[in-house]
Amino acid sequence: MTDLFEEIQPIVCRDGKVFFLDQTALPMETRWVEVSSAEACQDAIKKLVVRGAPAIGVAAAFGMALASRVVQEADFEGYQSRMREAAELLASSRPTAVNLFWALARVEKKIAESRGRSVTDVKAVVEAEALAIQRENEEVCREIGVQGQAVMRDGISILTHCNAGALATGKYGTALAPVYAAKERGLRVRVFADETRPLLQGSRLTAYELSRAGIDVTVITDGMAAAVMSKGWVDACIVGCDRVAANGDVANKIGTYSVALLAKAHNIPFYAACPLSTIDLATAQGSDIVIEERDPLEITEYLDKPTAPQGVKAYNPAFDVTPSRLVTGIITEAGIVYPPYTENLAAALVRGVRGA
Amino acid sequence: MTDLFEEIQPIVCRDGKVFFLDQTALPMETRWVEVSSAEACQDAIKKLVVRGAPAIGVAAAFGMALASRVVQEADFEGYQSRMREAAELLASSRPTAVNLFWALARVEKKIAESRGRSVTDVKAVVEAEALAIQRENEEVCREIGVQGQAVMRDGISILTHCNAGALATGKYGTALAPVYAAKERGLRVRVFADETRPLLQGSRLTAYELSRAGIDVTVITDGMAAAVMSKGWVDACIVGCDRVAANGDVANKIGTYSVALLAKAHNIPFYAACPLSTIDLATAQGSDIVIEERDPLEITEYLDKPTAPQGVKAYNPAFDVTPSRLVTGIITEAGIVYPPYTENLAAALVRGVRGA
Repeated sequence: MTDLFEEIQPIVCRDGKVFFLDQTALPMETRWVEVSSAEACQDAIKKLVVRGAPAIGVAAAFGMALASRVVQEADFEGYQSRMREAAELLASSRPTAVNLFWALARVEKKIAESRGRSVTDVKAVVEAEALAIQRENEEVCREIGVQGQAVMRDGISILTHCNAGALATGKYGTALAPVYAAKERGLRVRVFADETRPLLQGSRLTAYELSRAGIDVTVITDGMAAAVMSKGWVDACIVGCDRVAANGDVANKIGTYSVALLAKAHNIPFYAACPLSTIDLATAQGSDIVIEERDPLEITEYLDKPTAPQGVKAYNPAFDVTPSRLVTGIITEAGIVYPPYTENLAAALVRGVRGA
Repeated sequence: MTDLFEEIQPIVCRDGKVFFLDQTALPMETRWVEVSSAEACQDAIKKLVVRGAPAIGVAAAFGMALASRVVQEADFEGYQSRMREAAELLASSRPTAVNLFWALARVEKKIAESRGRSVTDVKAVVEAEALAIQRENEEVCREIGVQGQAVMRDGISILTHCNAGALATGKYGTALAPVYAAKERGLRVRVFADETRPLLQGSRLTAYELSRAGIDVTVITDGMAAAVMSKGWVDACIVGCDRVAANGDVANKIGTYSVALLAKAHNIPFYAACPLSTIDLATAQGSDIVIEERDPLEITEYLDKPTAPQGVKAYNPAFDVTPSRLVTGIITEAGIVYPPYTENLAAALVRGVRGA
């Protein structure tokens, strides 16, 4: 399994160089892009070369490390000021995934805590923090998989949306972590992957990583999920998430709210899976989450071929919000959080910090 | 408006030649295909050069006319036997839309009623019947639009799935007939068109014909319908249908059942629109309807470009069944049929026959 994850992890740091696996090119092409500045990192996040909430967090941390390397100022205040600018630049890449802001805040906190040390030392701290965020992310995802076993059993059939797998995180994934962990335990698992229009992260990425891992995966179009559920072919839905509000509302890839409503209509449990860093108690409820709107061309063209008449209007929100009443549970590294979410999410965060 | 429909009607018979507008090439290319045999007609239906339940019925009738022209037998029994074979060939093209079987049965009934006349005369009867089916289809669609005004009002916003417009019928469409008729009355109507994967009939065809008709249309991916509904942007859903069972269950393009469940969850009325010829009292309920499964490549490739890893499994049912409990009403040329469907559909058919 190690070789596999070596091959399909989204972000690799080797000999001080940072590489992103270009997820816009998969599965047609396995193309590694060297990212050598915060600007290039911001651009790669915007263009979805790297995507998935946890991976965006890791990418942002490496973006900070790349910015740090080229700071000329030798005084702490000057350094911190340049790094503040880098954090603002990286924060402007995409608005929805809270992991981005979490990772930036974590690096900036490390910088603030290093006041009094030489800038050379602080630069080393920042490099180490980026690597730590990446490593911890992998450990957290592995633990999400372990905790998620509570909902798995031999022969289970899971429906997922978008990609919240190794490619979205760095290892194991979030939504797919329980699937990979079940496979390691020898359980048979079947996965239905919503293709997830417009950018097809389900068919391009989820199907790619699951089939390479030898897991039985079937691609369906997003409109087929209801029909597949009505046949009794889905035992549980598990999706990733980009932000969990304090009340348990979940922002995730557009189409997730639809899956949650359809699951409810068929009495199928619906789980979101994420690291605790995706839980944002500062966001009271889903309606407070900024939803990124992207270029309509993502809908009206595919690989430069038109999919609609030229100039026709399209609406392209990248995410939607699933209200907590539709969420059976939230699978985290600190266990599965169940309603009432307002109490239990806060408690899980405390547990997570204690456990860390 | 006449010029517009002249241009975008799916089937044209000119100087005895039959042409299909190739709907697999729209909107990139407006390509007319001359169809000169029943075999070519069957192939065109299979490949979706012509699609949409009512249009498939008209195409099948022209397929019978084309078969009729080349029958060598001069005796009635021989002629009828050849035409039976042609009907079987055409019936084998696609299993779900009942209009196909309805049109074939109608032509065969005309043949049977013509027993005793010369084969030359019967051939003329068959040609006339195909043209009559096409003409009546246009009149029926216009009347569906008129009847559908009961659910329309100025400023209304409609969500539709797939294409049940002029391209699916011959004129006005079924689901889009109330929209076109409202536009003719001067009402402002906004339409959200689900792109309708895998074959994108919503973005390619519905957006094409509505934008050409000057109607405000916005393309969304199928996964966005729930989010758009939750914003309060949808006042009613109207879709076409391929078969209505005696109990009111509705078979239509895959993804329709999903739209119906999402509409229910948002208290949005959900209408199916169709000619009475789509109502099949011989089918007791939706689970008795044969659902066509198509090539998985329709999902895993777009215009020969991969959308998924090579060889990955995909499930590709072309239709799904929406249970009658989710259907607010069925808009027909004999008025809007409301529950209880078992009684009211049968009554509508009687009314329709009386009115004819």
